[in-house]
Amino acid sequence: MKHITIINGPNLNMLGTREPEIYGKQTLADIQKQCEDKAKALSLSLDFYQSNHEGQLIDWIHAAASRSLGLIINPAGLGHTSIALMDALLTLTIPAIEVHLSNIYTREAFRHHTYTSHAVKGIVSGLGAQGYLLAMEALTAT
Amino acid sequence: MKHITIINGPNLNMLGTREPEIYGKQTLADIQKQCEDKAKALSLSLDFYQSNHEGQLIDWIHAAASRSLGLIINPAGLGHTSIALMDALLTLTIPAIEVHLSNIYTREAFRHHTYTSHAVKGIVSGLGAQGYLLAMEALTAT
Amino acid sequence: MKHITIINGPNLNMLGTREPEIYGKQTLADIQKQCEDKAKALSLSLDFYQSNHEGQLIDWIHAAASRSLGLIINPAGLGHTSIALMDALLTLTIPAIEVHLSNIYTREAFRHHTYTSHAVKGIVSGLGAQGYLLAMEALTAT
Amino acid sequence: MKHITIINGPNLNMLGTREPEIYGKQTLADIQKQCEDKAKALSLSLDFYQSNHEGQLIDWIHAAASRSLGLIINPAGLGHTSIALMDALLTLTIPAIEVHLSNIYTREAFRHHTYTSHAVKGIVSGLGAQGYLLAMEALTAT
Amino acid sequence: MKHITIINGPNLNMLGTREPEIYGKQTLADIQKQCEDKAKALSLSLDFYQSNHEGQLIDWIHAAASRSLGLIINPAGLGHTSIALMDALLTLTIPAIEVHLSNIYTREAFRHHTYTSHAVKGIVSGLGAQGYLLAMEALTAT
Amino acid sequence: MKHITIINGPNLNMLGTREPEIYGKQTLADIQKQCEDKAKALSLSLDFYQSNHEGQLIDWIHAAASRSLGLIINPAGLGHTSIALMDALLTLTIPAIEVHLSNIYTREAFRHHTYTSHAVKGIVSGLGAQGYLLAMEALTAT
Amino acid sequence: MKHITIINGPNLNMLGTREPEIYGKQTLADIQKQCEDKAKALSLSLDFYQSNHEGQLIDWIHAAASRSLGLIINPAGLGHTSIALMDALLTLTIPAIEVHLSNIYTREAFRHHTYTSHAVKGIVSGLGAQGYLLAMEALTAT
Amino acid sequence: MKHITIINGPNLNMLGTREPEIYGKQTLADIQKQCEDKAKALSLSLDFYQSNHEGQLIDWIHAAASRSLGLIINPAGLGHTSIALMDALLTLTIPAIEVHLSNIYTREAFRHHTYTSHAVKGIVSGLGAQGYLLAMEALTAT
Amino acid sequence: MKHITIINGPNLNMLGTREPEIYGKQTLADIQKQCEDKAKALSLSLDFYQSNHEGQLIDWIHAAASRSLGLIINPAGLGHTSIALMDALLTLTIPAIEVHLSNIYTREAFRHHTYTSHAVKGIVSGLGAQGYLLAMEALTAT
Amino acid sequence: MKHITIINGPNLNMLGTREPEIYGKQTLADIQKQCEDKAKALSLSLDFYQSNHEGQLIDWIHAAASRSLGLIINPAGLGHTSIALMDALLTLTIPAIEVHLSNIYTREAFRHHTYTSHAVKGIVSGLGAQGYLLAMEALTAT
Amino acid sequence: MKHITIINGPNLNMLGTREPEIYGKQTLADIQKQCEDKAKALSLSLDFYQSNHEGQLIDWIHAAASRSLGLIINPAGLGHTSIALMDALLTLTIPAIEVHLSNIYTREAFRHHTYTSHAVKGIVSGLGAQGYLLAMEALTAT
Amino acid sequence: MKHITIINGPNLNMLGTREPEIYGKQTLADIQKQCEDKAKALSLSLDFYQSNHEGQLIDWIHAAASRSLGLIINPAGLGHTSIALMDALLTLTIPAIEVHLSNIYTREAFRHHTYTSHAVKGIVSGLGAQGYLLAMEALTAT
Repeated sequence: MKHITIINGPNLNMLGTREPEIYGKQTLADIQKQCEDKAKALSLSLDFYQSNHEGQLIDWIHAAASRSLGLIINPAGLGHTSIALMDALLTLTIPAIEVHLSNIYTREAFRHHTYTSHAVKGIVSGLGAQGYLLAMEALTAT
Repeated sequence: MKHITIINGPNLNMLGTREPEIYGKQTLADIQKQCEDKAKALSLSLDFYQSNHEGQLIDWIHAAASRSLGLIINPAGLGHTSIALMDALLTLTIPAIEVHLSNIYTREAFRHHTYTSHAVKGIVSGLGAQGYLLAMEALTAT
Repeated sequence: MKHITIINGPNLNMLGTREPEIYGKQTLADIQKQCEDKAKALSLSLDFYQSNHEGQLIDWIHAAASRSLGLIINPAGLGHTSIALMDALLTLTIPAIEVHLSNIYTREAFRHHTYTSHAVKGIVSGLGAQGYLLAMEALTAT
Repeated sequence: MKHITIINGPNLNMLGTREPEIYGKQTLADIQKQCEDKAKALSLSLDFYQSNHEGQLIDWIHAAASRSLGLIINPAGLGHTSIALMDALLTLTIPAIEVHLSNIYTREAFRHHTYTSHAVKGIVSGLGAQGYLLAMEALTAT
Repeated sequence: MKHITIINGPNLNMLGTREPEIYGKQTLADIQKQCEDKAKALSLSLDFYQSNHEGQLIDWIHAAASRSLGLIINPAGLGHTSIALMDALLTLTIPAIEVHLSNIYTREAFRHHTYTSHAVKGIVSGLGAQGYLLAMEALTAT
Repeated sequence: MKHITIINGPNLNMLGTREPEIYGKQTLADIQKQCEDKAKALSLSLDFYQSNHEGQLIDWIHAAASRSLGLIINPAGLGHTSIALMDALLTLTIPAIEVHLSNIYTREAFRHHTYTSHAVKGIVSGLGAQGYLLAMEALTAT
Repeated sequence: MKHITIINGPNLNMLGTREPEIYGKQTLADIQKQCEDKAKALSLSLDFYQSNHEGQLIDWIHAAASRSLGLIINPAGLGHTSIALMDALLTLTIPAIEVHLSNIYTREAFRHHTYTSHAVKGIVSGLGAQGYLLAMEALTAT
Repeated sequence: MKHITIINGPNLNMLGTREPEIYGKQTLADIQKQCEDKAKALSLSLDFYQSNHEGQLIDWIHAAASRSLGLIINPAGLGHTSIALMDALLTLTIPAIEVHLSNIYTREAFRHHTYTSHAVKGIVSGLGAQGYLLAMEALTAT
Repeated sequence: MKHITIINGPNLNMLGTREPEIYGKQTLADIQKQCEDKAKALSLSLDFYQSNHEGQLIDWIHAAASRSLGLIINPAGLGHTSIALMDALLTLTIPAIEVHLSNIYTREAFRHHTYTSHAVKGIVSGLGAQGYLLAMEALTAT
Repeated sequence: MKHITIINGPNLNMLGTREPEIYGKQTLADIQKQCEDKAKALSLSLDFYQSNHEGQLIDWIHAAASRSLGLIINPAGLGHTSIALMDALLTLTIPAIEVHLSNIYTREAFRHHTYTSHAVKGIVSGLGAQGYLLAMEALTAT
Repeated sequence: MKHITIINGPNLNMLGTREPEIYGKQTLADIQKQCEDKAKALSLSLDFYQSNHEGQLIDWIHAAASRSLGLIINPAGLGHTSIALMDALLTLTIPAIEVHLSNIYTREAFRHHTYTSHAVKGIVSGLGAQGYLLAMEALTAT
Repeated sequence: MKHITIINGPNLNMLGTREPEIYGKQTLADIQKQCEDKAKALSLSLDFYQSNHEGQLIDWIHAAASRSLGLIINPAGLGHTSIALMDALLTLTIPAIEVHLSNIYTREAFRHHTYTSHAVKGIVSGLGAQGYLLAMEALTAT
């Protein structure tokens, strides 16, 4: 059975309460549930992580290298500022996809660029929780 | 039966021959075929357009307003430079999704920003022809 | 009888439906009617054009050179990006006036500058449809 | 009888002698006369001011709030640099129109942007003294 | 009894030894003591934290949401670079005040801007340890 | 008895009517009253000034040098643009504190930087009228 | 017999009347005649095009791919702004040379850079109509 | 007898007390005395002004036009920010020379550029009070 | 016996597998071994650390202050973005040297600048693992 | 018999060995030979120089003024940085043409601009050694 | 008898023929003569140099350190680009004054800044040959 | 016996007298002596050069190509401005190391970037004369 790692960055543990007009009312647990259902449908096993600690996110990325067929990352605010996170993704040979719940290009200018986008195969932005599910499909398409 | 409009910008008619190391070997006809198959599976009717003329693309966007449930646009090089194209998308009340075959963030700096991204619901970048199919799913979800 | 050419750029055909909180509820046909009434009052004949095609706009500018005493252009989104449109205006020896319905200086930063403004006699911005009428007066004042 | 305030910024008292190849040979008194004639035609009373002192201009803007139906300002060089002048205009609920004698977009780059344009309803630039008259019409239309 | 959270960012544990010509000779324990005295005077309970770990600071901000009436943060060097920290503050509905011991505007240019300042009610900069006390007053003023 | 000078810049005379959603409903007279009450409590005498004239503000700063123990300045829009005002503050050897009613870092980009902040001991921003009172405390703390 | 395509961008149809102090008094027909003469001398057949429509220029570039040994393009104002035109040139495997009648580096700053120059073999600028002839020689050398 | 106008900008009335390590210990009265002595030696009459009010400086510049053979201005901090002051100098046909006591190019970056330098014949910077005397010589040479 | 602290930043634990064409095939354990051998030769004791957690790196820097004669840091990606890390180095009075395995000036532009370089005695870049050894020599040279 | 001066800047003496994938395998002597052959065909005499010394290049430019009908310069790396070289070309009244072997617009950003291009009649870039020959033709046409 | 060194940079040997509308009709020999006359009047001996070679200029600056009481430099185009020349001036403990014949602030933007101005006592710009004479006075005053 | 070339740029001949607080009290002769001693210890022959002439430095770099196993360059001020010097280093196939006596990243911003660093194997900055010795070790390490 194939394995996928999903990693969520800072403040995503607050989803549902944090600025719901931007991020919607779903909690991260809701999204995790949808991802687990999708994983079953795709015959995948899944690790679904969240941390507010950059170092922890990097450790999880390193760990994915040897046990996952692909990685999905929502770097949240760290995507815009962390070259270390980008470098962690560059150590991977498995494909990674960056997901953002909101369309980052319709927000403040400092959210338009992410370092992590330089180190992934693809980006899905603005499609809400469905973005995770589409990324899972993309990773498992032939 | 529901309708979707897919619009392709300049030079995408050359897919398969144009810089295949970046854009792959599929022709636009190949992608159109995959989209039509997906449309059938989703019970959608579909118009799939391509033009090298900005004005033509704008005319098609205006036309979609009254007959499509959503629009998918690969603006190609015009996405980076055309405020007129962005303004055309802003006239829409139906959702639009921007698709790029390649990950534009790993290419030249002038390809990192698109005006059109300011006027769409979401963006899918770097996932090749599958990006169109995922966008179709996103437009028809719930 | 004297002749004036009025040229409208991309998306202005959608006036009335496009973002009415910015552009108002008048259609382009409404504005054309007002201009024609004003033309009569000023003993002018008038061509009133709109196109989403930059090339078409340039062709009309060239044509005005030999048959109009002045030209009014609302370049819409193309004003911000088209050096070709500016160059077309620079080929004219008749005076041209640039008109914007909204005050472009209270909108996004990329709308604050127009290339076309470098090639015209004057600019009227933010005064709605009346801007066209004032420009007609200006062109026909002594 | 309705009232309009017209305010002229620094150095406009030198019109006619100051760089006539840019600003023309009319003196400010000439322009004042044309504005007074126009005011009569529009059944308006009029205060026509000029000062080289930013603080004086701000005081006049504040005063207009309670006795004028609209305000016309030619901020001259202060428009490009004075946030205080912009803030004074922002205190108004009556409409204001900014007028420039010359087309500021065909001059030095530092003259292309005015802070005051962010705080007015509309701008008329490049139409000489007639710009004042057109602005008076615009303030009194409907 | 009302509760306030005070959070101190990286390197503030070194106060008193670190560049005393900029930050003064007080240790963080000295400042904590002053804050506790002030808390008593204002009938507040107080948590006073310091960490060099961004993730820890974010966790503490999240925790404050449900038990404090307000939050005071001295983000130190992270204020200039951490969008994640700003986003953590944006999840709060209680007011937050940013405090800097030194006047950051008289130091290197890269210290003039903080992301966190975009997400707080107010900022107190350059008033040394007293800045914390003034911020406590501000949070508890009616 | 000790003396403090408080200086308010352009447009602050319009407080209460000017954009109350940003600046609140208090008038400058209300704030002056609060400052005078605070002064009594701190055994201070007080001069509380406002002018729309940069030169007047500079004259008052010079005058404070020889009769006040400290100075509080709300430079309003001039803070962002006036090097002359900054230079006036640099002539002082008594401490000065800059106060802004609103949090200038959550407003337009051109309001994020003030020259005056380079020439003062500290800054209090975003705490409304209370900012003046806190600054008075800071100036009189041992 | 070998074939060359020469493509001229917007406003070049106005040569001879458009700003002759910059572009000279030759018409485009004059230049076409010189190019046809040169073609004969070099035993080349030639298509010589002009359009004000970007889309048309792109279509002609695509068409040249399969029937010309090389392409000469004077992109005029579009060279500075059109990534789509650059992308069209990038689809070619035949060599292309960009020609400008005037020395674009002695003109306005926005004319110093062309996107198209990133996609061609060489550039000839400032040598008037002779630039076309030299480019024809260059394409047929060796 | 020939006349020269010397105009000093904001804060120069504080010379001798203001940052003497930068500006020296001479007062403005000392400099005025030296200028008056030099004027006698050169058979010149002299008006020597100082104001903290931009508008006053502009009024004096206008007045010099008709009674002085040349003008010397030390614009102080206003030189860096005031386009109005530059425009006042541009109204002159008599020569003007800009003087700075300190070498403005060895100070903060925002002091390296003055608008006024675009409107004068020459600049003398960094030579202290002697700069005024040299400028007087220059105005009266030949 | 004298002590040196060597600190390695994020992703350096992946050396040997991470982009070996840039960073070489040595593992971090290999480099640690070389440093330990060099330490013996120089009669030094050595702590050799690596972490992906910025906070951990800062804690180690603080700890070195009281027990090492010097510190060597390879900040990896954090060097480019972390003012907090720079500030930690600024708390030291012992000398620190920054080491980069690759020449950061021949890589992407965002790798050319490190904040940490502002807070160290010297930098060695591009000399691979030998850079650590040379830095050890430099710290122990008289 | 007419005379032309050809001047080559720094490092061009290394042609053939220096980065042949960019500059080709021809030596400068090869190019000199081609230029001499072309000169004979055009009945020209020729001086063909190379130096790594900016001052020497300037001396040769000055010397050409009185004995050549035109000048060809390949400024190499100095073209991007030397205002002195540009100024030397500006002293000429004979026409000059700038030649680059490679297309400088497809290389690093700092090679896209040359100061020298502001001081010449025309530029030929990217056409290898043939660029010199075409420039010779251009100088002797008509 | 006291000694002064005057150093002239590239292209100043062409004075009188080079762009006389900017630099005047005087030759460098004329200026040298005026300086020698002035030197006599001031009881100075004088070395007056010119070179187009940056290295030569630096050598002369070094030589002046031990035999001149002051140095005057017209760096011409090198002033804008040469940090090496600035560094040479920084090695001096004798005062240096930078002279420009034309007002560099009314010319192209790239001429507004000189590195050398950071390393001199004062600057005289725009006063023609007289600038040298005034600088000689300034060096010998007191 | 193996050979190394060491090249020193402008003003380094003044070491010991030039700004000793930045560069130390050693003369260049002192450094040369240390390098010669080190060369003996490493069984190397050595050429140790200095010039203030960019062209001379380039000539020496070219000469090193065929007789040295490696090159050490302290480009001094030329490193920041000379693309020609960078290009000279790019002609080499032997390794080069750039050395700076001071830490250039703690000095003025214009000293933070060197073009030469793009063309060398490694950089040693801030370690004084020892930097040369470490670079010699690095060049001769296996």
